Amino acid sequence: MAEHVTLDALEARLAELQAEVKDTEARIKALRGPKVSPLAPAGGFAPLPVIGGVRFAAAEAGVRYPGRLDVMLAVCDPGTAIAGVFTRSSTRSANVLDCQAKLGSDPSGGAAIIVNSGNSNAFTGKHGEGSVKAVCAAVAKAVGVAENRVYSASTGVIGERLPHDRITAKIGELTAALDAKGIERAARAIMTTDTYPKGAMAEIEIDGRPVRIAGFAKGSGMIAPDMATMLVYLFTDAVVAQADLQAMLSDLIGPTFNSITVDSDTSTSDTLLLAATGASGVKITADNAGFRDALGDVMRDLAHQVVRDGEGATKFVEVRVTGAASDADARTHALAIANSPLVKTAIAGEDPNWGRIVMAIGKSGAKADRDRLTIRFGDILVADSGWVAPDYREAQGASYMKNDALVIAVDLGIGEGAATVWTCDLTHDYIRINADYRS
Amino acid sequence: MAEHVTLDALEARLAELQAEVKDTEARIKALRGPKVSPLAPAGGFAPLPVIGGVRFAAAEAGVRYPGRLDVMLAVCDPGTAIAGVFTRSSTRSANVLDCQAKLGSDPSGGAAIIVNSGNSNAFTGKHGEGSVKAVCAAVAKAVGVAENRVYSASTGVIGERLPHDRITAKIGELTAALDAKGIERAARAIMTTDTYPKGAMAEIEIDGRPVRIAGFAKGSGMIAPDMATMLVYLFTDAVVAQADLQAMLSDLIGPTFNSITVDSDTSTSDTLLLAATGASGVKITADNAGFRDALGDVMRDLAHQVVRDGEGATKFVEVRVTGAASDADARTHALAIANSPLVKTAIAGEDPNWGRIVMAIGKSGAKADRDRLTIRFGDILVADSGWVAPDYREAQGASYMKNDALVIAVDLGIGEGAATVWTCDLTHDYIRINADYRS
Repeated sequence: MAEHVTLDALEARLAELQAEVKDTEARIKALRGPKVSPLAPAGGFAPLPVIGGVRFAAAEAGVRYPGRLDVMLAVCDPGTAIAGVFTRSSTRSANVLDCQAKLGSDPSGGAAIIVNSGNSNAFTGKHGEGSVKAVCAAVAKAVGVAENRVYSASTGVIGERLPHDRITAKIGELTAALDAKGIERAARAIMTTDTYPKGAMAEIEIDGRPVRIAGFAKGSGMIAPDMATMLVYLFTDAVVAQADLQAMLSDLIGPTFNSITVDSDTSTSDTLLLAATGASGVKITADNAGFRDALGDVMRDLAHQVVRDGEGATKFVEVRVTGAASDADARTHALAIANSPLVKTAIAGEDPNWGRIVMAIGKSGAKADRDRLTIRFGDILVADSGWVAPDYREAQGASYMKNDALVIAVDLGIGEGAATVWTCDLTHDYIRINADYRS
Repeated sequence: MAEHVTLDALEARLAELQAEVKDTEARIKALRGPKVSPLAPAGGFAPLPVIGGVRFAAAEAGVRYPGRLDVMLAVCDPGTAIAGVFTRSSTRSANVLDCQAKLGSDPSGGAAIIVNSGNSNAFTGKHGEGSVKAVCAAVAKAVGVAENRVYSASTGVIGERLPHDRITAKIGELTAALDAKGIERAARAIMTTDTYPKGAMAEIEIDGRPVRIAGFAKGSGMIAPDMATMLVYLFTDAVVAQADLQAMLSDLIGPTFNSITVDSDTSTSDTLLLAATGASGVKITADNAGFRDALGDVMRDLAHQVVRDGEGATKFVEVRVTGAASDADARTHALAIANSPLVKTAIAGEDPNWGRIVMAIGKSGAKADRDRLTIRFGDILVADSGWVAPDYREAQGASYMKNDALVIAVDLGIGEGAATVWTCDLTHDYIRINADYRS
């Protein structure tokens, strides 16, 4: 059997095989259609309720690629209050700077949101500001709202001039297509490397009357807190003053979108807008617990969906840190674990390598005492008092790591600080997606 | 040609092909021998001079795997001064804590260093301390030095009990084999995922008399500053007081080992020891520029060799940041670029995606002004004044990215702060190495 073969012959055979693998993969992909994350919600895009006072439209403008929805327009009725949170990147895009300036002025009247995918209009110098101005002015004119009530965002490649005339050319078509039921098409139009559109909703009763919240998000890579590298648009028919809306949003952003990380990288375009149209007639103030909880649930749901669509993700991971010296310390530890390439690759390999969790805690810079630390995988006690737990067996950990959704729970044993963050694993597909994104 | 094939048939064929690829790769690997990093120094392990006053030995103790060198012993003559720097991890190993305590006492007399690979003895609770004590006591007795002059280190898997009796069983063999020329075998014995042993040397004249420095390092993954996640042993025949030796080392660690990063993860075992045996009879104080420069060169050389052996690395990358508000800000920006998964995967894909560099600067938290930023690939001006440079063409960047060694130069344009760090790209091989390391 052991026939003699040379290294050259083996290498030639390997090249042949690899070419056939590539070809076969391409044929499978063509038959199957686009790949969807294995962690996508089972039922697909959940039906979202109509939110009175806002209509949506989407169009194919060919911003970067032809034949796909890449611009969405949302138009809100007069009286809509808008709140927002944005990336803190020092190189943030012209759109973000423009939105921040407009929120500050908070005029009344109608409002519009226009978003394109394919090009982020970030790091495009004075041209970028010109593009924002051109797009917002065209929308303002077409839908009859003040220009300082038109909010824009762009997502996609950085540093290339936005061909904004392709967007302005579609505004007539968009305006004509505005539809209260158009939210799913809008969610699809803002996708980039996302493998599925992301929507979430809540319906609650306040004083016996229904109030609705619905929203959508995009984001898949370049996901890390401050804020979570994505675009998110939320709508409610509640009547809320702008200051109250902003206060609720600013409180809820921490434990939701600012507690997720895919790759520790932060986009220059992160934008979350929350619009309250008031169409339900139900008045809400910032201290309304029912509304806050529902809004928080919608935000957490969307944040989780972004992680579940993390580039190349095969595992959804919750990192729970308790017993830290402070909440800030707990968050530092949790992010050190969630962002560690060695932890993330171990998870990808279904390897219960808890030593790397110890490493990440050690490097985080936040307070820890090796001998008070406990680590759990789900309910399994793995490490305790500075060493592996006496009853822990590697087979238990290995079996647990085969789950799609994992909980890594660390207790520092030194205080009351706690934090939870969500992340995904680091796989070959992340490398494939990001080594080929632009070329 | 377009025969009809089903998805099932294609998937079955793909599985067959992948099995044959795996088999062929294994046969190629068996014929070729272990893979060496494509960035390894061309000439292999450089011949190192004999340093008077120190002898080395290495042995196969089977700490984790049989049939490989995995323990090294170095014994220094009486009068040797020893300085050290260590990981700042809060979960650092028992060995590190023990070395730190012993350095503080700085007694005279002979000294010994014993290092094993295969098991890091980190996060092993009280057992870990017992192992350090057992190994150091056995070495002290065998070579006739005080126990508080025996420095140990362990590197390898975290959280598994060190089988220290396998090491103590080899101490007689090691002591008998001590040899002034044994440094290369010692360098090989401390390797873990390293693909080549790392040595560097300098010979200088001081007052007409020769002084030598030689050393070796291991490190390949879990590499990030504070300090650079590795083991490093340096020896000189200069006569240097311990305080002077420590002062020089503490100054030189910043721009050398603390300026490299492979994956932003920091080991629990980082140790660098510098021994001055005094055998040359040439007295050196901390202000001797010639000696400092030579020592700095040896340290930088070894630090670069560690990055060049970064797990899966195919590119050696220097990130130079100038014009920052402070040196600390420059370092923050440089590390944000060097540790960004999106920057590192772009480099792996030879994609001149400078937008991701802008992103990394933006997220770093240090001061930046988008419109004053310039970015260069080597000498090529890529971005300037908040946008792509007018004369830059993507083809230039794409061509530059094909080099093995790259320089990314960023000028913030706002101050005098500067920093340089070295890193490598993030490739499929990093994932392969780290998703399978332990299982």
